[in-house]
Amino acid sequence: MKVIKFGGSSLASAEQLKKVLNIVKSDSTRRFVVVSAPGKRHSEDTKVTDALIKYYKHYITDYNFSEDQDWIINRYQSITDELGLRPAILEEIAGAIKDLATLPKEDNAFLYDTFLAAGEDNNAKLIAEYFRTEGLNARYIHPKEAGLIVTSEPGNARILPSSYDKLEELRESDEILVIPGFFGVTVDNHICTFSRGGSDITGSIIAAGVKADLYENFTDVDGIFAAHPGVVDKPHSIKELTYREMRELAYAGFSVLHDEALIPAYRGQIPLVIKNTNNPDHPGTRIVLEPSSSATPVVGISGDNDFVSINMSKYLMNREVGFGRKVLQILEELNIRFEHMPTGIDDMSIIVRGRELTPIKEQEIISQLTRKLEVDEVSIERNLSILMIVGENMKSKIGVTATATKALSEAGINLMMISQGASELSVMFVVRTEDEKTAVRALYDAFFE
Amino acid sequence: MKVIKFGGSSLASAEQLKKVLNIVKSDSTRRFVVVSAPGKRHSEDTKVTDALIKYYKHYITDYNFSEDQDWIINRYQSITDELGLRPAILEEIAGAIKDLATLPKEDNAFLYDTFLAAGEDNNAKLIAEYFRTEGLNARYIHPKEAGLIVTSEPGNARILPSSYDKLEELRESDEILVIPGFFGVTVDNHICTFSRGGSDITGSIIAAGVKADLYENFTDVDGIFAAHPGVVDKPHSIKELTYREMRELAYAGFSVLHDEALIPAYRGQIPLVIKNTNNPDHPGTRIVLEPSSSATPVVGISGDNDFVSINMSKYLMNREVGFGRKVLQILEELNIRFEHMPTGIDDMSIIVRGRELTPIKEQEIISQLTRKLEVDEVSIERNLSILMIVGENMKSKIGVTATATKALSEAGINLMMISQGASELSVMFVVRTEDEKTAVRALYDAFFE
Repeated sequence: MKVIKFGGSSLASAEQLKKVLNIVKSDSTRRFVVVSAPGKRHSEDTKVTDALIKYYKHYITDYNFSEDQDWIINRYQSITDELGLRPAILEEIAGAIKDLATLPKEDNAFLYDTFLAAGEDNNAKLIAEYFRTEGLNARYIHPKEAGLIVTSEPGNARILPSSYDKLEELRESDEILVIPGFFGVTVDNHICTFSRGGSDITGSIIAAGVKADLYENFTDVDGIFAAHPGVVDKPHSIKELTYREMRELAYAGFSVLHDEALIPAYRGQIPLVIKNTNNPDHPGTRIVLEPSSSATPVVGISGDNDFVSINMSKYLMNREVGFGRKVLQILEELNIRFEHMPTGIDDMSIIVRGRELTPIKEQEIISQLTRKLEVDEVSIERNLSILMIVGENMKSKIGVTATATKALSEAGINLMMISQGASELSVMFVVRTEDEKTAVRALYDAFFE
Repeated sequence: MKVIKFGGSSLASAEQLKKVLNIVKSDSTRRFVVVSAPGKRHSEDTKVTDALIKYYKHYITDYNFSEDQDWIINRYQSITDELGLRPAILEEIAGAIKDLATLPKEDNAFLYDTFLAAGEDNNAKLIAEYFRTEGLNARYIHPKEAGLIVTSEPGNARILPSSYDKLEELRESDEILVIPGFFGVTVDNHICTFSRGGSDITGSIIAAGVKADLYENFTDVDGIFAAHPGVVDKPHSIKELTYREMRELAYAGFSVLHDEALIPAYRGQIPLVIKNTNNPDHPGTRIVLEPSSSATPVVGISGDNDFVSINMSKYLMNREVGFGRKVLQILEELNIRFEHMPTGIDDMSIIVRGRELTPIKEQEIISQLTRKLEVDEVSIERNLSILMIVGENMKSKIGVTATATKALSEAGINLMMISQGASELSVMFVVRTEDEKTAVRALYDAFFE
């Protein structure tokens, strides 16, 4: 059986929902349907979730919110009308939207989460109704009934491990279950939303819980591209990549799925496919556990900017037991995550994301390195980008790094740093951000053209 | 003015001392002569220092040591006889050698150092006498008189910073001062020797102390080769390299001078030249503070073996603040120095020297990584070699890494890791030790042929 998840743009209009119906109908093993809130119909449109945020703000500040309610209800109505659904379902949705404005405002840590979750929750009701109208044996199921019990961390809920036993019972159902994404319920019955990648997380948890054969994630692209389409002209889409490759690519700028959303599916060993609602015959991109031997050495090339390098040198640094640890300790005490730590003999660099390094923290680091660790020199270099070439099969092929460095060299790119770790799953290059796009194109041409 | 230091093989016989005399005579700015003990005259010969160790062992164990005394005195005598020096100097040396066996054995932490230092000390007396005989205004000077005051750490003395003021006064002397290398005197008047690189350290300190224009280090080779002559057939010798380059090369196997010996000269900003006593017209290798613009991008290629990689992976490792620090802490608590730490996204490797990692420590590391840090996988890979291509001018030249990786790829070498830090002073490659020599040759050919 399969878990199938649709994103907001796949559920934005009646026209889109007809595509969704056909997709679900065309494969009887598609038994669990996880849905987002209605997304944008065109680039100027407003997402239902964003309208709910506005509604919430007006409600808690005692501002007039009836326009917000109307907008949201109309948004659902435009879909129910066009699909010819019975009026009762819209009444139910309208009632739920209006009821939000009766919830207590004081001492309610979950109020914001409850407003937000209404987008997904009501869409699930609508879609289950639509499926039934079209002859499917479908049913809306609330996360509480499904067993999606989460920690009490508003905006950052995590699934309780004990939930998985209950979720597994859903296998026994002979209905198509339509489940709202993005939230779960706490042991105290509060609505609590996941962090970034919300509905993807729900799909991933359900897939792991019901031990699905496949987790299908429907978006509005034909899968994952081998490089960013904004940088490389018409990059090819990747047929298959592993979870590890996906994670390496996600690290430096690939954002089709948020990588943390994949953890439950990865740990549950569920393969995943990313497909296009608007082009369902395209095979999409499969994300699997082990690489196939036929895969190319490099599956994708990613690039991300806003990295900073803290460079330090000290004569005979290398002989000091504990030097590296002390440097990392300084960062840890300032709550800064480091990304990489390339070392020479008497020099060391720490690469961090720019957003981690405020001017005050920067001054503190320089001061502590100079005072406590007595480094000879320290400098901070901003506006760096990290490029990654990723592929599990790189390790069996000599010369991938040579091809990459040759391509970068011929494109006139000055490599600030290069690092290839023992996993041989990726090679990382640090370049100046002004060179990033040229470098990604050079690498793409070298490996895919 | 110049400080000139001669190693043991340059002082092993009367024939060698004649070369030394000519070298000193040929340049009137050679004002401070630092000497080692007489070294080997041929490969089967015994160094005077080794004979002194034997003498010491026999003395402290109340074994008969008269043969040892005779051997050492005869060794000096063979030189004084051939040079036709007056008998008084040999009597003085013989007396000093015999007097060693009158020193207290109990509670004498400096006894071993005092025996060892006699090799250099008596050679300095002999050489000063020879210089005088040949018409030079030369004088032996004891480290105490010179002002070489050191810490009370037998076998591991370090110069006291306050010594430098006294040493600077030596500039005022109009004599050629002959100074025994390898030892200093503690504030309590004990003889205390330096660690590895002994006489080189003395030369380096004197050069810094008298603010020499140049520190000339005379050995038995025409300078430093761009690669190990045992690996590459007739490598060319390097004309000029910087202290930083020297240190990077020394790190992975270059051992003409021990790099720690250079610290005083480096800190004193004294340029150094390594020359050949047996071929003094050869310009040798200059070690300078800043690279000249005409230098080639790569100055040398070194390789060293017996490295071990501790590889670990953990899903989402990268998100854990403090993970890297905790890994280094485990190593620090086991008193293991790490060399490099290449990182991927969810994996990290720690490279250490094989001698640092006993089987017990290895087990402890694996156990702690698994138990405390909950890594998903950990593996240990032995028999690795580190290759370094070194050159300060690499940073201004795009494509050095490309040239190197291409050469290695064409030689069929599988790169285990590669790291180029921010200093861009060197690029490090980790390969299997079985590939090391092929790899060094491939790199040498790529950059020097």
